Amino acid sequence: MTTQNLDAIAARAAEIAPRWAATPPHERAKALVAAADALMAAQSDLVATAMEETGLSEARLSGELKRTAVQLKLFAETVVDGTYLDVRIDDADPDFVLGVRPDVRRYRIPVGPVLNFAASNFPFAFSVAGGDTAAALAAGCPVIVKAHSGHPRLSVQTADVVATALESAGAPKGTLQLISGQQAGVDMLNDPRIKAGSFTGSIRVGRMLADIAAARPTPIPFYGELGSVNPVFVTQAALEENADGILDGFITSVSGSAGQLCTKPGFLFAPAGSALAEGIASRAASVAEHRLLNPGITSGYQSRRDAVLSAPGVRVLAEGVLRIDEDGQGWATPTVVSVPVNVLREHREALLDESFGPLSIVVEYDDADELAAVAEDLFEGNLTGTVHAATGEDSPAVRHLVDWISRSAGRVLFGGWPTGVAVTPAMQHGGPWPATTNDSSTSVGTAAITRFTRPVAYQNAPQEMLPEPLRDDNPWGVPQHRTPAGESRNWGSVA
Amino acid sequence: MTTQNLDAIAARAAEIAPRWAATPPHERAKALVAAADALMAAQSDLVATAMEETGLSEARLSGELKRTAVQLKLFAETVVDGTYLDVRIDDADPDFVLGVRPDVRRYRIPVGPVLNFAASNFPFAFSVAGGDTAAALAAGCPVIVKAHSGHPRLSVQTADVVATALESAGAPKGTLQLISGQQAGVDMLNDPRIKAGSFTGSIRVGRMLADIAAARPTPIPFYGELGSVNPVFVTQAALEENADGILDGFITSVSGSAGQLCTKPGFLFAPAGSALAEGIASRAASVAEHRLLNPGITSGYQSRRDAVLSAPGVRVLAEGVLRIDEDGQGWATPTVVSVPVNVLREHREALLDESFGPLSIVVEYDDADELAAVAEDLFEGNLTGTVHAATGEDSPAVRHLVDWISRSAGRVLFGGWPTGVAVTPAMQHGGPWPATTNDSSTSVGTAAITRFTRPVAYQNAPQEMLPEPLRDDNPWGVPQHRTPAGESRNWGSVA
Repeated sequence: MTTQNLDAIAARAAEIAPRWAATPPHERAKALVAAADALMAAQSDLVATAMEETGLSEARLSGELKRTAVQLKLFAETVVDGTYLDVRIDDADPDFVLGVRPDVRRYRIPVGPVLNFAASNFPFAFSVAGGDTAAALAAGCPVIVKAHSGHPRLSVQTADVVATALESAGAPKGTLQLISGQQAGVDMLNDPRIKAGSFTGSIRVGRMLADIAAARPTPIPFYGELGSVNPVFVTQAALEENADGILDGFITSVSGSAGQLCTKPGFLFAPAGSALAEGIASRAASVAEHRLLNPGITSGYQSRRDAVLSAPGVRVLAEGVLRIDEDGQGWATPTVVSVPVNVLREHREALLDESFGPLSIVVEYDDADELAAVAEDLFEGNLTGTVHAATGEDSPAVRHLVDWISRSAGRVLFGGWPTGVAVTPAMQHGGPWPATTNDSSTSVGTAAITRFTRPVAYQNAPQEMLPEPLRDDNPWGVPQHRTPAGESRNWGSVA
Repeated sequence: MTTQNLDAIAARAAEIAPRWAATPPHERAKALVAAADALMAAQSDLVATAMEETGLSEARLSGELKRTAVQLKLFAETVVDGTYLDVRIDDADPDFVLGVRPDVRRYRIPVGPVLNFAASNFPFAFSVAGGDTAAALAAGCPVIVKAHSGHPRLSVQTADVVATALESAGAPKGTLQLISGQQAGVDMLNDPRIKAGSFTGSIRVGRMLADIAAARPTPIPFYGELGSVNPVFVTQAALEENADGILDGFITSVSGSAGQLCTKPGFLFAPAGSALAEGIASRAASVAEHRLLNPGITSGYQSRRDAVLSAPGVRVLAEGVLRIDEDGQGWATPTVVSVPVNVLREHREALLDESFGPLSIVVEYDDADELAAVAEDLFEGNLTGTVHAATGEDSPAVRHLVDWISRSAGRVLFGGWPTGVAVTPAMQHGGPWPATTNDSSTSVGTAAITRFTRPVAYQNAPQEMLPEPLRDDNPWGVPQHRTPAGESRNWGSVA
């Protein structure tokens, strides 16, 4: 990686882009499946390196690798299905109300080379072969991944496995390439041959990169998934129905992967005076120490944890452990505090920022009817918001919360926990700023393929000049939405 | 307009946004149709004002008003159809290969208040009640239009007609509001209550506004449609087959609305030595003088025309007229020059910029096989690119041109002319920078509705808590794409 030639890498991606874009869906899908199978075949090596570099558990990493492979297969199905192409065919219409309507046919094409900044906290699923890479490859874009410094050897190993598999399955050499280093990432983002960027990480870095992408002489779309505190709201009735289940789920969700997940619940709103304190303390105490990903994250977590623990009006429910060795590497158990809702509003500067690690804040409220307004006042955009209501509970308070979450987050959960994002066609992983830099699409689930495409229309083209998805004989068998002639004949008032 | 209270206007838009978003599709469609009918009913008044303020012809303006009304009706159909909601329902799947898959349901919701900067050159179709306004209203977003200074009285008249019609049809008061003044536009774009912006105009202003939108504390999507030179390529065989038709079409497309259209063909590539010169001169001479939109456009056109006419190596085919009165208002007939392709490459600084007015450049080429490479070297992104080939002509040169156009423009035309954009489901009016600031969507045609929406997912929601489009009983009757359980059972290699 020390000898990387950024110009040659960008040139290679640009050179092969038309070839990969023109690869028919079954062949592109075959290459994605080959990459998935190769990742699974290399599981023991990859997981071993990942464990060393990230401190995440074997179970978590094996599960994540499988998720990454399944993700590639789901995108292979998406490519073959072809719905994402959004094929629209307007038949020519000599009688159209505005005059002769031409034959117009539109579909979505790959944007070209994509630069994907890998994340620290998902060394497989949001890294070299992760969601954005899979989505971009599926869309027909060559991908350049900027490796995360937290798992450099794993990045090289993964890129080797995937690039070899893609190439063996017929993809052009260079369909997946790897670069490393912050400056290299910035330089590549400024390269005119890069047509879109994606990123998963902090608000600070994500905003810096988004600003660079927007300020280029030729601006490009930049999909950054940044910060989220994922509030969870528990009603009195839910607590009466299922306090143990809620407490178990809460501590599991807060402490899993040492809380280093973008969907970790950062705030749990619960009725004041409820007996949550002991339940949380005892459960948190039983969680084993977990390594934090790296010294940088350790230091950031230490600052946030100190700020929260020393904020006025905070009651410590579970102080937890943060142990830091001489190399700056940390190990932690969950820290949970509680505050009355008014204290949170008063000291929001100290308390509202995301704590990237196993820390969560229980917010005690008196009046459920005020919760939605309180949330609207406190929070910016989030990836998720969750309501725990009792079975059949339907109140204005719950409806107002659901309404607020739908307006300010990408996913509304009823019960359950936001961590463990399902990879499915309907998943939405995104949300208003600062959850993302661009909330028009998703970074998890097969709908993500659209972000790396743009529409192009063909007007009055002879059949033999049309790309396959737009032809009448439809050789790729994709869904075609046709608008027949004659539909405007009865529009009396404007005709 | 002098007493506009920007804060109150933004507050009103934000206040009613949830109500307009929740308006059921048939009611929202009814309001759009009412606005269309009201525009047609006010035709004589509106067209009279537009003629005075813009100098465009009655025929053109009447046609444009009708197009604007039809546009609203097409969007009304789009709303009721509901395909644009992209409803996806994943059934819960206890046997999913990655573990229990929840019930996840996703659709697209309106983003909230939209700020639309009106254009000078389409006082109806890209102005107060134009395409972006129609698309945003259809999506369920309140709209604030920044009036164009070129037609201030028409803007107020149109806003009155449309706002009254919307309100009479049940839309909340303030669903469409108008502001005026450059600083007011910038201030409103910076208002946190504005959730998306759109614009049609120059590269300079569009870039400035896009940069403001990207630099906000909370960045928002900004859809600017800016500059395009719309190259047209004519083969030798096409010229032999239909020289008269091509010449007639070319002069009509260059001179219509005095060339003040974003899709005007700025360059016509024709075989060197062809006898186009006389044909162009005689046709251009028969075009009557047409007023330019306003003194600002007159002055910009004068500079571009002077630069082109004085560039080295330019041969004047039709000098045309540019007459400017003491108020700076201009009248023009077509100016057409020709240059050998190598001269264009040598003097690209003087020649390549868009001339907003009735001026076009014929580029004489010797080798059709080189055209695609020449075009790639010369041009940035465009709204359109056009190939005139003979019936059945299929050559590598034509295929390379088509391929280059599809990679660098939003619409590929085979024969015909890029002006007169059809308003249809398959139309794509957009393209890579500097044609637009964001080429992921369109600003003409019903697909534009998507740009003013974002996705949100509901996980494990009880039926009664779901929005209508996601319910099993589907009260709005929208298309729902369902992913059933059990589909991953046979994925041996990762299971």
